[in-house]
Amino acid sequence: MDKQPHRFAGPPGQEDMPYLLTPGPLTTSRGVKAAMLADWGSRDVEFRRVVSGIRKGLLDLAGCDDSYECVIMQGSGTFAIEAALGAFCPKSESRTLVVANGAYGDRAAAILGKLGRPVVKIDKGDSAAPSVEDVTRALDADPAISHVWIIHCETTSGIVNPIEEIARAVKARGKVYMVDAMSSFGAIPVHMGVGMDVMVSSSNKCIEGVPGFSYVLVKRDMLEASKGMSHSVVLDLFEQWKGLEANGQFRFTPPTHALVAFHTAMKEHAAEGGVAARGARYQRNAQILIRGMRDMGFSTLLSDNQAGPIIQTFLTPRDKNFHFETFYEELRRRGFAIYPGKLTKRPSFRIGTIGKVDEAVMNGVLKAIREVLANMKVTDLAPLEG
Amino acid sequence: MDKQPHRFAGPPGQEDMPYLLTPGPLTTSRGVKAAMLADWGSRDVEFRRVVSGIRKGLLDLAGCDDSYECVIMQGSGTFAIEAALGAFCPKSESRTLVVANGAYGDRAAAILGKLGRPVVKIDKGDSAAPSVEDVTRALDADPAISHVWIIHCETTSGIVNPIEEIARAVKARGKVYMVDAMSSFGAIPVHMGVGMDVMVSSSNKCIEGVPGFSYVLVKRDMLEASKGMSHSVVLDLFEQWKGLEANGQFRFTPPTHALVAFHTAMKEHAAEGGVAARGARYQRNAQILIRGMRDMGFSTLLSDNQAGPIIQTFLTPRDKNFHFETFYEELRRRGFAIYPGKLTKRPSFRIGTIGKVDEAVMNGVLKAIREVLANMKVTDLAPLEG
Repeated sequence: MDKQPHRFAGPPGQEDMPYLLTPGPLTTSRGVKAAMLADWGSRDVEFRRVVSGIRKGLLDLAGCDDSYECVIMQGSGTFAIEAALGAFCPKSESRTLVVANGAYGDRAAAILGKLGRPVVKIDKGDSAAPSVEDVTRALDADPAISHVWIIHCETTSGIVNPIEEIARAVKARGKVYMVDAMSSFGAIPVHMGVGMDVMVSSSNKCIEGVPGFSYVLVKRDMLEASKGMSHSVVLDLFEQWKGLEANGQFRFTPPTHALVAFHTAMKEHAAEGGVAARGARYQRNAQILIRGMRDMGFSTLLSDNQAGPIIQTFLTPRDKNFHFETFYEELRRRGFAIYPGKLTKRPSFRIGTIGKVDEAVMNGVLKAIREVLANMKVTDLAPLEG
Repeated sequence: MDKQPHRFAGPPGQEDMPYLLTPGPLTTSRGVKAAMLADWGSRDVEFRRVVSGIRKGLLDLAGCDDSYECVIMQGSGTFAIEAALGAFCPKSESRTLVVANGAYGDRAAAILGKLGRPVVKIDKGDSAAPSVEDVTRALDADPAISHVWIIHCETTSGIVNPIEEIARAVKARGKVYMVDAMSSFGAIPVHMGVGMDVMVSSSNKCIEGVPGFSYVLVKRDMLEASKGMSHSVVLDLFEQWKGLEANGQFRFTPPTHALVAFHTAMKEHAAEGGVAARGARYQRNAQILIRGMRDMGFSTLLSDNQAGPIIQTFLTPRDKNFHFETFYEELRRRGFAIYPGKLTKRPSFRIGTIGKVDEAVMNGVLKAIREVLANMKVTDLAPLEG
């Protein structure tokens, strides 16, 4: 690695690595990583206790009563998404409405397409939230829609969608409501009791674990009814659940180290003060970052009431001296890995405000950005028009 | 954890954890685990170098020329198996022959069944290796067979199948030859050039990494021809490969820590002396264990020329004082996690001889077994008849 120790500002214990200001993998605590310093047998009683503790802890965190189950799936978040879509979305007759406002909604619709499951999509572009009316209009116009899939925080822009209000409208119409809370769960309250039948998230987001698995929280009766629905053996949620229930073991080798790390991350999450405290820290990170960036002259894609605390999208400056690759590399040399943009229409970049990072890190990246802009001789920060 | 430090004999640095004498997850080195003490950005140049180094290193280790590619898949070994079966096995007209002699052959056939891919199976039971004649007879009797799937080391028993001899017969008939080398790769030589078109293995086997991903080595022309074949988005090998080739990044979040650990494990594998040295250490482990167990009176399932160096199957003693659960727990308290049996017909248990374990560990488990048998008052070690 090309160290620049005189100005490098990486996390404690890994000073030669940057802070990860991305939507994940994130900077995690030393304790979470240290939990991986042992090898656990995947069939041993202690490990099974870890798995059972994670499953129960996640249900509690989502405010689930005992009508819900938690199924852990090996792989990234998209593995749980495909597993859930394959388990629960109808194969014919009725269909699934995907409420899309960014790449992750598009991806869910594409997966349903690949699986041959009937799908219709509301497309709000990539910087507007769907309203309750958007969804009710679609549902009322097409009675064949039986399932609704929506993203909580769309990291394409960082926007937070009003999943609770939409839940009430969806449930009033008797539809199944499925939420991708990948980037939000653990930092923005998710109460499944308001009408969520399915929720998916992953290990390397706001609980601040390392990547390696994802999970699905779901009504037990839906899980039971999903027997035989999956298009896959490894992604079969029903069989995965049956295996976990039968003997507390995974059907196929679990990522033992990532699970043990996550168990530690859940304890640290609780010790910090749970969802409220975690969300408050991220919100503070976001406020400091946005204020500092605006002070320099950057524009945000979203208004403050749209932007969530997870990741912030900034519009690329029109100054001809601004080159994102240079900007990225120079920040990285100073200890901060930011994230490219993903908007289809406007050049942009993103800075994540989640992970084991705080006010000091936000002030650090702001200082580094000021330095890099000065070195690049960038002065005009008004946005490029899309 | 219920520590018994006065007699606990866990690995250095994790003395309160047992040695894992299983087919994986394994005991790994301190260095492999310490590599997980940093958080790497999945899109950063250093991480992409790690991934590229792993892919190239695996191809070299399998003796591949430049007509092969390596695709890494998130999840356990079975994820790569399902991905490979879904990518390469025909959907109609021709069919796949699965050469089964244990649970892993059965599982491959079951996956093909789930995917609706035509499959025929040779079933050798769970303690006999398939011969070249078994395979040629099946191929010659059914010209519609276009693909052959076989397991290298069937950990159901620990038997090592003659994949090279069978390769020649399969290729002489112009069929596609696919090998599950999950438990063997890195310790038993695999030369893909002898006629293997596809090979799958995983991170937590004989390279001695931690669980979290698996990989497929495959002829590039087969991979190219597999576009659109997969039944899944996340398990689509062609798209996974295209993503890795386009920019060195994974389509979906990779298990960064497991990959960085594996990169370290590959360096340690090379430093030990590669496949030859790794295999020799495991062979020594196996010899010491088998000799010691036979000295006590235990019987092995397999003869010495059938048994590989990976995992050893012992027949359950007929002594009425022998209870496997007690035996297991007492060994575990002494620092050794062994493995239950998986034979369908004969009661048995298994002891793995792979991972970061050596002669001293084997002598340690033998000593512990003698103690536990004495405490259990087990004297008659002749096997229960199946």
